[in-house]
Amino acid sequence: MNIEPTFREQLIDAGILIPLGVDGVWGRNGVFEAICAGLEHAISEAGLNDAPEVMRFPPAMPQDYFEKSGYMKNFPHFAGTIHSFDGDERGQHKLLGQMARGEPWMEQQQPAGLVLTPAACYSVYPTLARRGPLANVGALVDVYCWCFRHEPSLEPTRFQFFRMREFVRVGTVAQVMAFREDWVARGKVFATSLGIPFEVDIANDPFFGRGGKLMADSQREQALKFELLVPINEGAGPTACMSFNYHMTHFGETWDMRTEDGEVAHTACIGFGIERLALAMLRHHGFDLDLWPVDVRAFMGFGTKVSKSVGSVDAVEA
Amino acid sequence: MNIEPTFREQLIDAGILIPLGVDGVWGRNGVFEAICAGLEHAISEAGLNDAPEVMRFPPAMPQDYFEKSGYMKNFPHFAGTIHSFDGDERGQHKLLGQMARGEPWMEQQQPAGLVLTPAACYSVYPTLARRGPLANVGALVDVYCWCFRHEPSLEPTRFQFFRMREFVRVGTVAQVMAFREDWVARGKVFATSLGIPFEVDIANDPFFGRGGKLMADSQREQALKFELLVPINEGAGPTACMSFNYHMTHFGETWDMRTEDGEVAHTACIGFGIERLALAMLRHHGFDLDLWPVDVRAFMGFGTKVSKSVGSVDAVEA
Repeated sequence: MNIEPTFREQLIDAGILIPLGVDGVWGRNGVFEAICAGLEHAISEAGLNDAPEVMRFPPAMPQDYFEKSGYMKNFPHFAGTIHSFDGDERGQHKLLGQMARGEPWMEQQQPAGLVLTPAACYSVYPTLARRGPLANVGALVDVYCWCFRHEPSLEPTRFQFFRMREFVRVGTVAQVMAFREDWVARGKVFATSLGIPFEVDIANDPFFGRGGKLMADSQREQALKFELLVPINEGAGPTACMSFNYHMTHFGETWDMRTEDGEVAHTACIGFGIERLALAMLRHHGFDLDLWPVDVRAFMGFGTKVSKSVGSVDAVEA
Repeated sequence: MNIEPTFREQLIDAGILIPLGVDGVWGRNGVFEAICAGLEHAISEAGLNDAPEVMRFPPAMPQDYFEKSGYMKNFPHFAGTIHSFDGDERGQHKLLGQMARGEPWMEQQQPAGLVLTPAACYSVYPTLARRGPLANVGALVDVYCWCFRHEPSLEPTRFQFFRMREFVRVGTVAQVMAFREDWVARGKVFATSLGIPFEVDIANDPFFGRGGKLMADSQREQALKFELLVPINEGAGPTACMSFNYHMTHFGETWDMRTEDGEVAHTACIGFGIERLALAMLRHHGFDLDLWPVDVRAFMGFGTKVSKSVGSVDAVEA
């Protein structure tokens, strides 16, 4: 009996994902990164006319930003805190002995004041808030960040570390709602240009615990979150590759962000899951980038010989 | 009395570095990222003819890779371990209470099996080792990764989170030594093309504790490490922006990497500190990319209007 390899096995066999021995933690090869660079290019182009302000953040954020965000109320199971050793040589000697004997050795690791970033936009709000009241036109930010969610999984679409690109809008309720509505439409055009099948549906976040069900229901009832879903995994529902989120005044109140008129600011963000979009492309167009449809290749800014130059992230032409 | 703002203050005033309230942890704006993309482009071009295999890794590595690397013997103070909450709703309730009262709340955080990557090449060795003995020509890898070192500092050149690009060579002692010697020369050409002042000098790593002095001396005596140094900070010595490292058989023995003949493999790596090189460029060419020397702009692949398009990482032309 022949058993068809799964998409996950195909990705590993082709060397596109490099297993590291931890579920959901992968290395990537040049083909995968060329697709990610192409997606970055296409997203930049899609947002270019809006002239967003560019902000880039490292993979972690300050502990006080994280605490204030309320993340541990909603998703404590996903967070990753960073700890470091501040012992002396005696402490190090003890630690190395524990490690050599295969014992736990991390009891001397102390909180380092940093938490892995769970969503790209989290550092945007305090950064904007520090500047004082918004201008009349509000704010629009283009942000990109490595994110972490501690949810080890065998599904190739569930990375513990992944990159998230976002456009973040801050302003009056009218500005923010118009932005999200516009981007739901633009998201559909974007996915159509990528040549992948999709549907857009109302969604909810995976809130923690029994109380989480209530929060999820409320989020759906208020239509706060939409997702663009693409079939990727065999025998499973489609995967959210983009999301369109309205936060009402949650971040405005948290960071005391004010509009020009002194009202609490509303916020919304459009998120692109880079790894998931890359997997969607591989799933629907195959592993040989040279054989992808010409218009898709053009949309992603690929040159004529991307497969020859995947040794470089510069496979994408500006 | 007029006091000239420091380079650090100038970077903040210009919005190039975004303070986040933690020393050595910064956001970046579009100008900074355009320079980083330009450096990536120039490094890719410099290595293109060697046809390295591309590997990309997330900002963390498996705990067992990390333990085996020996990092805690040499640099325990720099490491960042990742911890996550695996409690229940009662545990979460307790945690939220502690957080609300401003008390420590991380005692329920448990090791997540992941450690922040301290140097880009660390995941390359076990990945190569898993494939079995090397081919006759050895191996050459192009790797790029966010790295972490817990050394909070006010010096703008000392980021806790930074990006490191590396070329990694694995093979016989002759292959590896020739590679490093070649790259010391190519590194000088590279820095000359960037238009920055530099010197190359023998160097040592900042080993931990009193025993570290001996290791540093030994490293210098054996000329295992060279650095390309660029003056950046006022009133301080020059900053290492590239390094040229020969590890002898350290990683070969650790991961049992073998040459075609069955000998333990030697390794070397050439590291480019992306953030430090970007700061060197800002220091020596100024903050307006349009005013940079034409040949430098061409070397970095900048288009004609990079300052107009810093809203996008695609400011660099392939």
